Amino acid sequence: MKAQKWTLVKHFDGFPKDSDLELVEEELPEIKDGEVLIEALYLSVDPYMRPYSANLPLGATMIGQQVAKVLQSKAADFPIGQLVVATVGWRTRTIVNAVKPPNDGMLPTILKLPDLGNLDPSLGLSVLGMTGATAYFGFLRLCTPKAGETVLVNAAAGAVGSMVGQIAKIKGCKVIGYAGTDEKCAWVKSLGFDHSLNYKKVDIGTSLKEAAPKGVDCYFDNVGGKFTYTVLADHMNAFGRISVCGSINQYNTKLEDLEQGPYPWWHLIGRQIKMEGFMVHRWVSEWQDFIKEVKGWVDEGKIQYKEHITEGFSNMPKAFFGLLKGENTGKAVVRTYKY
Amino acid sequence: MKAQKWTLVKHFDGFPKDSDLELVEEELPEIKDGEVLIEALYLSVDPYMRPYSANLPLGATMIGQQVAKVLQSKAADFPIGQLVVATVGWRTRTIVNAVKPPNDGMLPTILKLPDLGNLDPSLGLSVLGMTGATAYFGFLRLCTPKAGETVLVNAAAGAVGSMVGQIAKIKGCKVIGYAGTDEKCAWVKSLGFDHSLNYKKVDIGTSLKEAAPKGVDCYFDNVGGKFTYTVLADHMNAFGRISVCGSINQYNTKLEDLEQGPYPWWHLIGRQIKMEGFMVHRWVSEWQDFIKEVKGWVDEGKIQYKEHITEGFSNMPKAFFGLLKGENTGKAVVRTYKY
Repeated sequence: MKAQKWTLVKHFDGFPKDSDLELVEEELPEIKDGEVLIEALYLSVDPYMRPYSANLPLGATMIGQQVAKVLQSKAADFPIGQLVVATVGWRTRTIVNAVKPPNDGMLPTILKLPDLGNLDPSLGLSVLGMTGATAYFGFLRLCTPKAGETVLVNAAAGAVGSMVGQIAKIKGCKVIGYAGTDEKCAWVKSLGFDHSLNYKKVDIGTSLKEAAPKGVDCYFDNVGGKFTYTVLADHMNAFGRISVCGSINQYNTKLEDLEQGPYPWWHLIGRQIKMEGFMVHRWVSEWQDFIKEVKGWVDEGKIQYKEHITEGFSNMPKAFFGLLKGENTGKAVVRTYKY
Repeated sequence: MKAQKWTLVKHFDGFPKDSDLELVEEELPEIKDGEVLIEALYLSVDPYMRPYSANLPLGATMIGQQVAKVLQSKAADFPIGQLVVATVGWRTRTIVNAVKPPNDGMLPTILKLPDLGNLDPSLGLSVLGMTGATAYFGFLRLCTPKAGETVLVNAAAGAVGSMVGQIAKIKGCKVIGYAGTDEKCAWVKSLGFDHSLNYKKVDIGTSLKEAAPKGVDCYFDNVGGKFTYTVLADHMNAFGRISVCGSINQYNTKLEDLEQGPYPWWHLIGRQIKMEGFMVHRWVSEWQDFIKEVKGWVDEGKIQYKEHITEGFSNMPKAFFGLLKGENTGKAVVRTYKY
């Protein structure tokens, strides 16, 4: 059985290039007892792949999740046809040991996709998958929002940001979102955000002062850089909470070219700000609770979502680079029905 | 009755100057029902006075605490001779309403000094006062140290830093302290710190890697600036906690001259670091518990301390400027017996 995979042949330096990645074909062996052969239906591309790939050895398969179907099985719990969420990287077909998934505090290599009813299984990568969990746990656990508080989220038209804002509305907060095009802002507004602002057209400080005249209590940060400096220095309320999810504006910049500003620590003191970074694996033991609650919100229409679908496994790099450029609204996925 | 006070006549710009402050004499009225007249015995000078005085109107009395004695009383709870800790600023004599102290989450304007036995009442400003509480609550509550963890503290020969390190040793941690002279480092080492390093003579990154080869779990930051950037970027362990107490290396620098570095938010994510700023008033409701526990440690010899005493109310500016230059080892106080 043939499989394809995208491997890293040169570490990204600045914005990733086509020549940094190579599509490799390989022949898979027969599966052994306890193993399954899975085939990707949808693959996720996410901002975190940019920084974390820096730690991969050259020649390694690019990291990531996929929704896949079991093609062959020697593991009773994973019959042929079972849909799974698999953390196996950018691969079309993969042999996975389904009996003893690694369990070192990370997500198991394969998880059964929960029954999504009429919903597309791609949601196992977005609102009901790692992206959704990132918004759910990262916002609720680290920002601990209270009804009536003001919540700020950037990259608000992204898969995580759009969900953070909607969860904040469910919790009774006032929500301000920043995104990078007028079309994205219109979608963000349609999700129920109180304000959606195009950061390419407005001054962050001025527009935020207008949108949040009483200041910001919870800030969910996907962007980093000077945006975050401005918010921290001038807009956070006493006892404000900042959940640091991503720093997409820094990922593609060479270390020596990173934008600089005054060291910001002082700004945490007077208003007693808490700032915490996270990776979503931290809450892996509570994953089923998250799926249950968010599935309920989706069924009730309280969480809306968009997917930005790229067709074909050969287009994985294109989809990834597009994501890093902000071309997507909602979750960026690659569909591989016809690879 | 005459009183003297130090007022701010020009906001500090860069390092404070003698001409920014003015000694003013005033005549106090008779005290009314519910009021007491207190006389300062010891006045505290602290780093926080530098940044917080920026918010004072010109002509205002410099902020701060003192240990004082009740000279006249029309408040039954505060008889003549009672020792108090008073938050009334840089003043020799002060009339205070002792019946209705403001209670807006800050420390009451006057508190009775607890019975310190044979200990000098100046300790009400240091280990058993606001300084001690800053170390106690700021370290224990925000760093949540566990036995066996590695703790880093800078300005380690200061009133707060020296106590943080000793509390960390009581809790069974390995402790690394940085201070600015060899004499200070020797004292810090004598307190039981595992390592004390002169930051003016060593490279922070290299020396910290040697002293804490397994990384830092808890970092109590009094200094800020590039020191903190280095620690955050290269030395914190997963789930590390940073308590942001002060940024003394930035207080005396003009805004436009602040040292700059890359925006640091990204470094919080991968290792899931929590960073929190605080002001000690936050724990005012637990003040008596703190005094009881720390008094016990002092009595058992587990907490040692030094005071850096300047004589005379007229020398308040000198004591304050000296503190900002790091001339003190331990708590800087001004004694006013003979003003």
